[in-house]
Amino acid sequence: MANLKHSPIYEKWVAVVKEQQKTIVAALEAIDGSKFRVDEWTRPNGGHGISCVIEDGNVFERGGVMVSVVHGVMSGAAAVAQMRASHASIPDGIDALPYSAVGLSLIMHPKNPMAPTVHMNCRFLETFHPQTGDAELAWFGGGADLTPCYVYDDDARHFHGALRGVCDRYDAAYYPRFKAWCDAYFWNAHRSEARGVGGIFFDDLDASGGREIDSLFAFARDVLQVFTEAYVPIVQRRRGEPFTEAQKQWQQLRRGRYVEFNLLHDRGTKFGLAGSTPRVESILVSMPLTASWKYYHEPEPGSREQELVDVLQTPKEWV
Amino acid sequence: MANLKHSPIYEKWVAVVKEQQKTIVAALEAIDGSKFRVDEWTRPNGGHGISCVIEDGNVFERGGVMVSVVHGVMSGAAAVAQMRASHASIPDGIDALPYSAVGLSLIMHPKNPMAPTVHMNCRFLETFHPQTGDAELAWFGGGADLTPCYVYDDDARHFHGALRGVCDRYDAAYYPRFKAWCDAYFWNAHRSEARGVGGIFFDDLDASGGREIDSLFAFARDVLQVFTEAYVPIVQRRRGEPFTEAQKQWQQLRRGRYVEFNLLHDRGTKFGLAGSTPRVESILVSMPLTASWKYYHEPEPGSREQELVDVLQTPKEWV
Repeated sequence: MANLKHSPIYEKWVAVVKEQQKTIVAALEAIDGSKFRVDEWTRPNGGHGISCVIEDGNVFERGGVMVSVVHGVMSGAAAVAQMRASHASIPDGIDALPYSAVGLSLIMHPKNPMAPTVHMNCRFLETFHPQTGDAELAWFGGGADLTPCYVYDDDARHFHGALRGVCDRYDAAYYPRFKAWCDAYFWNAHRSEARGVGGIFFDDLDASGGREIDSLFAFARDVLQVFTEAYVPIVQRRRGEPFTEAQKQWQQLRRGRYVEFNLLHDRGTKFGLAGSTPRVESILVSMPLTASWKYYHEPEPGSREQELVDVLQTPKEWV
Repeated sequence: MANLKHSPIYEKWVAVVKEQQKTIVAALEAIDGSKFRVDEWTRPNGGHGISCVIEDGNVFERGGVMVSVVHGVMSGAAAVAQMRASHASIPDGIDALPYSAVGLSLIMHPKNPMAPTVHMNCRFLETFHPQTGDAELAWFGGGADLTPCYVYDDDARHFHGALRGVCDRYDAAYYPRFKAWCDAYFWNAHRSEARGVGGIFFDDLDASGGREIDSLFAFARDVLQVFTEAYVPIVQRRRGEPFTEAQKQWQQLRRGRYVEFNLLHDRGTKFGLAGSTPRVESILVSMPLTASWKYYHEPEPGSREQELVDVLQTPKEWV
């Protein structure tokens, strides 16, 4: 295979994700009062990454902020077809596609059942001509979403408001479109309910339809940058809420639903684990510390648990 | 759609799975000392079932013995393609395939980490001509496998020996073939390890290559019938083993791997959840009561936990 000829924006994006990883980890360490474990790794067949992981902290029971800078050749018609499912512009009939993927992904599961789990992911993808190595397609994908066990309207509004603020700086159509896309993507279809109260999700954001790659870069960077503002105030005000043993049990059942989504439906998890040398532990940092399942557990009518289920079954507009 | 014209063996098989469900539930209740909850259900678009579920028993923390007698039309090229993946005889180019599926499936998760989880599933599948309703293909599939957290050679040998006894009564080639198929099927590919110490797995067992459907029926029936002999003595001798808190934690991590297999790889789970009106709680009775994940947890060299990992990474011949 020829050397990959990256887009000019590639090196700038690598620098952004590494810088934002440091900033976010520092902010989360300041909340938690304990340190993340930092693992730098390389893949024998291309790429490197930095996984920052926390377990059994004071505020967070498990979570990670991961950067990966990888490249490879997607081989096999099935793998290429899976990527084409979300990127129609990849032509038919190709069964080996050189690609590069650079992203930051983050998941944090707090201990307190009143404090929501958060997820964020922003990545820059490129594909290359198999013979010449010329860059062919380049796009950004990502988003951020919030998964509470108990509904706090203020929290959902704050989180959505911060993300909307970034979206509206670039395109008035972004937030409505990416909010709806998030609700559709994080849909636990077999349960007919959303994973959480949503946020934004976008993919295949490329330089077409009048968009410039520099503007897409700036947008994705700003999504990363808004994370601490969007999430930290929420976890700060919920970390000390009183809760009962029954509420902790409810959290465990909701963690089970989170596991179901990530293993059954999440494309990123499937794509990562299907690779030739997946770093399984980095991909599955998304799993909670503990989760539970019970047969036909149903909340009491009118309870706060039922309130959550109602919101998840019919996603709301928050801002 | 025309009425489905079932094979003559259909009614006999329905009677066998319902009778075996009663026998097995009675045997497990005798061990546990508490009763299963019994739910009879019907599907609006075809079929019925009986789910017997136990939670927080004395011996079992969660489990179920489920019978389902369902029919429908697999619609969509993707669903049919998924079924064709394991049944090459289904012709190309069909996107609506009437089918019937009658089976017993069972999963039991004991509390004591020294007592293994067990799974069994035997089903009779038929497909029908879309216009005439004539039976076209009919086959049996199923198997049984054992998932310990700690290796007891005696347990694995006893379990495999009981299954081998049934296999050998029908075809000397069955056990070696179905044992290897089980190791290959219950392979947690992303972890490069087996789910457990295996057992047997078979699919697409139809009346071809000199096999008679009556003999296949008898084989599948005998697999169901051997269950209590294969499993009950094992759980009886392990239910009271002393264990430490650290061993219970190890069990929780192994439960996490069980969840990963069932949601990422198990075809039956995916097929069931992808249906138009899945009975999610019956399908996900396979989930443990609780599970846990830890980043890069690695057993001590020479420990009993490492012994399990070694066996899972390189499946053994037990009998």
